[in-house]
Amino acid sequence: MNRFNFKHSVKVRVRTYDVDSQGIVHNMNYLKYFEMGRIEYRRNLGYKMLPSGIFDDGLKVVVVHNTIDYKSFSYLDDILIVFTKISWIRNSSFCFEQMITDESEDRIVCSGKGILVNLNDRNEPETLSSKFISEIENFENQIVKIHNEN
Amino acid sequence: MNRFNFKHSVKVRVRTYDVDSQGIVHNMNYLKYFEMGRIEYRRNLGYKMLPSGIFDDGLKVVVVHNTIDYKSFSYLDDILIVFTKISWIRNSSFCFEQMITDESEDRIVCSGKGILVNLNDRNEPETLSSKFISEIENFENQIVKIHNEN
Amino acid sequence: MNRFNFKHSVKVRVRTYDVDSQGIVHNMNYLKYFEMGRIEYRRNLGYKMLPSGIFDDGLKVVVVHNTIDYKSFSYLDDILIVFTKISWIRNSSFCFEQMITDESEDRIVCSGKGILVNLNDRNEPETLSSKFISEIENFENQIVKIHNEN
Amino acid sequence: MNRFNFKHSVKVRVRTYDVDSQGIVHNMNYLKYFEMGRIEYRRNLGYKMLPSGIFDDGLKVVVVHNTIDYKSFSYLDDILIVFTKISWIRNSSFCFEQMITDESEDRIVCSGKGILVNLNDRNEPETLSSKFISEIENFENQIVKIHNEN
Repeated sequence: MNRFNFKHSVKVRVRTYDVDSQGIVHNMNYLKYFEMGRIEYRRNLGYKMLPSGIFDDGLKVVVVHNTIDYKSFSYLDDILIVFTKISWIRNSSFCFEQMITDESEDRIVCSGKGILVNLNDRNEPETLSSKFISEIENFENQIVKIHNEN
Repeated sequence: MNRFNFKHSVKVRVRTYDVDSQGIVHNMNYLKYFEMGRIEYRRNLGYKMLPSGIFDDGLKVVVVHNTIDYKSFSYLDDILIVFTKISWIRNSSFCFEQMITDESEDRIVCSGKGILVNLNDRNEPETLSSKFISEIENFENQIVKIHNEN
Repeated sequence: MNRFNFKHSVKVRVRTYDVDSQGIVHNMNYLKYFEMGRIEYRRNLGYKMLPSGIFDDGLKVVVVHNTIDYKSFSYLDDILIVFTKISWIRNSSFCFEQMITDESEDRIVCSGKGILVNLNDRNEPETLSSKFISEIENFENQIVKIHNEN
Repeated sequence: MNRFNFKHSVKVRVRTYDVDSQGIVHNMNYLKYFEMGRIEYRRNLGYKMLPSGIFDDGLKVVVVHNTIDYKSFSYLDDILIVFTKISWIRNSSFCFEQMITDESEDRIVCSGKGILVNLNDRNEPETLSSKFISEIENFENQIVKIHNEN
């Protein structure tokens, strides 16, 4: 995983409530930084979250899978860079691939991915709109691999 | 503030994500333990929270004030005892008085209070029901001071 | 993954600060419940965490990998059951396999695993003690697959 | 409390893990924003926190009191402005006075204060340095009321 593969990044500072008594960021908090990256990625495309937790174009997603590989420690008051891309889109789901580095972007702190599913009002999986797909493809500047789920 | 003034208590264990790099529980997390105490206090009277964040008898409250005095440190893996009482009720508001001690109940970790307001569907203050008031009075076994707000 | 494969479980209640504005537990908080399960698993074998974040037999571990698959939603005030086992041990690392169900143990909320590495004082990987390995094998009542890492 | 009394402010965005199922920021999280404001206030004077949780000029503080008055709600994805000042300094303690508004700075979300105590290596209260006091006085551009504690 190489930072040059990522077109979107956002900075976050490690806060006192993010580290544990070993002095390092608690493993769960990287999912917090990942989520911040995911939402800022979409904001960068012109969308924002409504108070209900749904995006203002109606997109309602839930996370169905998360993976993280922890590579090095980060500490209180560190600035971290959260890199985010969408690496594939299927019928109703898509995958965020992410990497967090130190401020210099030289050292990988962790990397991971999350798979999200688009839901309708009855919380059933719903096909992603072609508008969503083309916006991601335009932004990532590549054909995002699209597989039908069946 | 004396533990014998409290008829309700609940145990909580300090977790890795509750302490900071000084090794002590982060000051904000005592509000977390306070809230746990407040909800368990009401559960003890027969009520529970619905997924919406409203109690199952329709009580919908928000916190309008919190105060905490931190007296001593607590550490990872400590068992804490959260003592909770309702010390007064007004028209639409009431006050939780709380104390947290170590497991032996000998050392006070912090004490504080929170004022909550009862809201109607339009999020306006609403007079508390006489049922709510009499249940609290019965439980606390004393006339809870009731003042009209005007 | 079947709950009969697990010899250890612990209950946790979903709190107001664990759910988001969609009304469901935020995806990162299952890592919190997983960690609670991991620490209670070791407490059940007679060990506890010291304030420093190291176990009282000197075991110092860090998480190097987490995976979670989210299967169904959980809501405010739900009781969840966190099942935990150690499924393999290597030289200096071992794997927690975990599952979270609803209170009836009928519905899987999520499942996942975490790989932890044993560190020495210089934060380098250190071979796990034979005492640690035999205790886990005895508890899990099976030969935990042991591979040398090289 | 008037925003023109404050010389320091910092922006923070409300994240999905900060709101509860009522859709509003959980009451404890304003202490999180307050702490961010307190640390950024000191960074603005040239100091930063070390991984140990102590500032790089040796200042080691703990919170002994927090008060918050909640005035209005804030929601997911809101930008909040955290205003911070030091309103008094005593021998070994000082007081942060804080206010949080919406992004337009027109609506007060909450206000509060926190009292911090300076500690020595044995965690006993220690007189604050004259350097610390004069820096705060210079920044706040007023004689900060200094009382001896006895």
